[in-house]
Amino acid sequence: MGSTPLLRLDVAVLDRNIAAMSAVAGTADVALRPHAKTHKSPEIAARQLAAGAKGLTVATIGEAEVFAAAGFDDLFLAYPLWVDADAAVRLRMLGERVSLAVGCDSPTSAANLAGLPLEVLVEIDSGHRRTGVAPDAAGQLAAAITELGVRVRGVFTFPGHSYTPEGRQAAAKDEADALGRAAAAMADAGVPAQVVSGGSTPSAEFVQGSPLTELRPGVYVFGDAQQVELGTIGFDQVALTVEACVVSLAQGRVITDAGSKALGADRPSWASGYGRVLETPDARIVALSEHHSTIEWPGVLPDLGSHVLLVPNHVCNAVNLAERYHLVGGGTWPVAARGRNS
Amino acid sequence: MGSTPLLRLDVAVLDRNIAAMSAVAGTADVALRPHAKTHKSPEIAARQLAAGAKGLTVATIGEAEVFAAAGFDDLFLAYPLWVDADAAVRLRMLGERVSLAVGCDSPTSAANLAGLPLEVLVEIDSGHRRTGVAPDAAGQLAAAITELGVRVRGVFTFPGHSYTPEGRQAAAKDEADALGRAAAAMADAGVPAQVVSGGSTPSAEFVQGSPLTELRPGVYVFGDAQQVELGTIGFDQVALTVEACVVSLAQGRVITDAGSKALGADRPSWASGYGRVLETPDARIVALSEHHSTIEWPGVLPDLGSHVLLVPNHVCNAVNLAERYHLVGGGTWPVAARGRNS
Repeated sequence: MGSTPLLRLDVAVLDRNIAAMSAVAGTADVALRPHAKTHKSPEIAARQLAAGAKGLTVATIGEAEVFAAAGFDDLFLAYPLWVDADAAVRLRMLGERVSLAVGCDSPTSAANLAGLPLEVLVEIDSGHRRTGVAPDAAGQLAAAITELGVRVRGVFTFPGHSYTPEGRQAAAKDEADALGRAAAAMADAGVPAQVVSGGSTPSAEFVQGSPLTELRPGVYVFGDAQQVELGTIGFDQVALTVEACVVSLAQGRVITDAGSKALGADRPSWASGYGRVLETPDARIVALSEHHSTIEWPGVLPDLGSHVLLVPNHVCNAVNLAERYHLVGGGTWPVAARGRNS
Repeated sequence: MGSTPLLRLDVAVLDRNIAAMSAVAGTADVALRPHAKTHKSPEIAARQLAAGAKGLTVATIGEAEVFAAAGFDDLFLAYPLWVDADAAVRLRMLGERVSLAVGCDSPTSAANLAGLPLEVLVEIDSGHRRTGVAPDAAGQLAAAITELGVRVRGVFTFPGHSYTPEGRQAAAKDEADALGRAAAAMADAGVPAQVVSGGSTPSAEFVQGSPLTELRPGVYVFGDAQQVELGTIGFDQVALTVEACVVSLAQGRVITDAGSKALGADRPSWASGYGRVLETPDARIVALSEHHSTIEWPGVLPDLGSHVLLVPNHVCNAVNLAERYHLVGGGTWPVAARGRNS
């Protein structure tokens, strides 16, 4: 402990990941609007736009404020906002400065958007079972929102059920079917969708031939242990790790100083542990406390005091815990929107 | 979203919790050294000391620096530190200013402590299977550290296996047995333990009659859903909640804007969900994304836009995600050591 744990970013791998997703979008002729909640970094967003991304997706008004202040002028807040008086003031300031769209899944919520300088994408559920209306209800919702005087730009979904082993391609098909039905319902209701937006890192590779006009993956820039275990990527596509120090070898296991306050505590039921170890694929993080990871390590153990590179299960939550990226080769970038989660 | 999600602290409940743990320690005639990693707040630490706590426990050098700067002068860093050159400089500055002790579970690590203005508590494993040597090895370890010229103050353990349903009292017995054997081994080795330190919130109530001279619980100040489900506390002892806004009622469930970036992603295998809902004990948080919690809610659903109070599973990780506490009745306190996790 002392310098560790810290976020370690390999910019060469990052740039390869950014180029590869731009190629996926280009081949399928869809716009790329990557989700900036993963990195919260204007430096990384700039690289995404330089590689062809059309604009950014954000999760919160606070993130939108950070990226607008950094000069990004086309933002989609992919969230069914409830806009109170404070939020209305902040959205008005944003919308007067940048091209702004927000999500919405009910006319009750939409009523708070009337008069603000923004457009709406109606949210549908494509199988993740979180927010969003049924695809066939998108036309009725879009018409109701339009009647409130709020302009509807299109429709979006998040196929979060792509985060299951063997489920990626099926989720992409669910997403395409649901967005196709929603777009048809909107056309029938007289509110055609200019933008049909979907996408997640696990499902993105199946976008070809779908009705999507826009893709919103986030995690692909860094990769993480979930993506490795889902089969989306290999370890050679992992750009971000948590550098940790071996502080104990008690009972023949490796204990490092990176716990849930550095890696995040995410562990889906299908994951093999609380993260992985780069370059030691057979190691498993079998337990996690706030400041300890306990690793069952095959073969010769690393020395006490040596540094190891851990791959978080869910990189978005790991990034949100740190103040800065430490770049391989030297230098740092701030996690500019860290903690801007409202 | 906008103002929410936020940490909401009921100081009246906090003060009752602080007084109750001081009474437990007083009745058992053990010193209380609460773990400040839970709250990271000088305001709360001051209340703990005013109620009789002897000093503070911290998890990292960064936390020790924050509390030393705030005037707290008796700190135990309950962690088996690996001290590199940078950490040595920081520990020297700390040790010249406050009474400082650190954990250690190997002579290799202890060699880096020689010459620093601090004392050591040897760490033993009492059943949690994380860091620490076997109890009977404590004498040999203490003697080896002493031979390096580093002064050994005592012995400590963390009975983390108290975090299982029905396991609290058994873990407290394991802890007492292990610390008793370790203290005997240290006396035999000619390095008697002045301090015999243990404790966790779930096991603290069983301290009476144990060999402990010092108790180090952390979570008790706030309580959380884990403690409720372990049976340590009732909902009336929960001082800290995450105030969230209902943003969607899709598919008859309640979706709020407090996700894993506000509540933390902790979910032990025995937990009933990703947290609980204060005043709605039959509600269950069945899914958690970064910015959404999905709640199965019995009976009449709350309105869109209304605020609800969520109880995090693990309050330490929820606090580390926020910049400040919002006090019931008005005002804020900073989470002064937020992110100081190295």
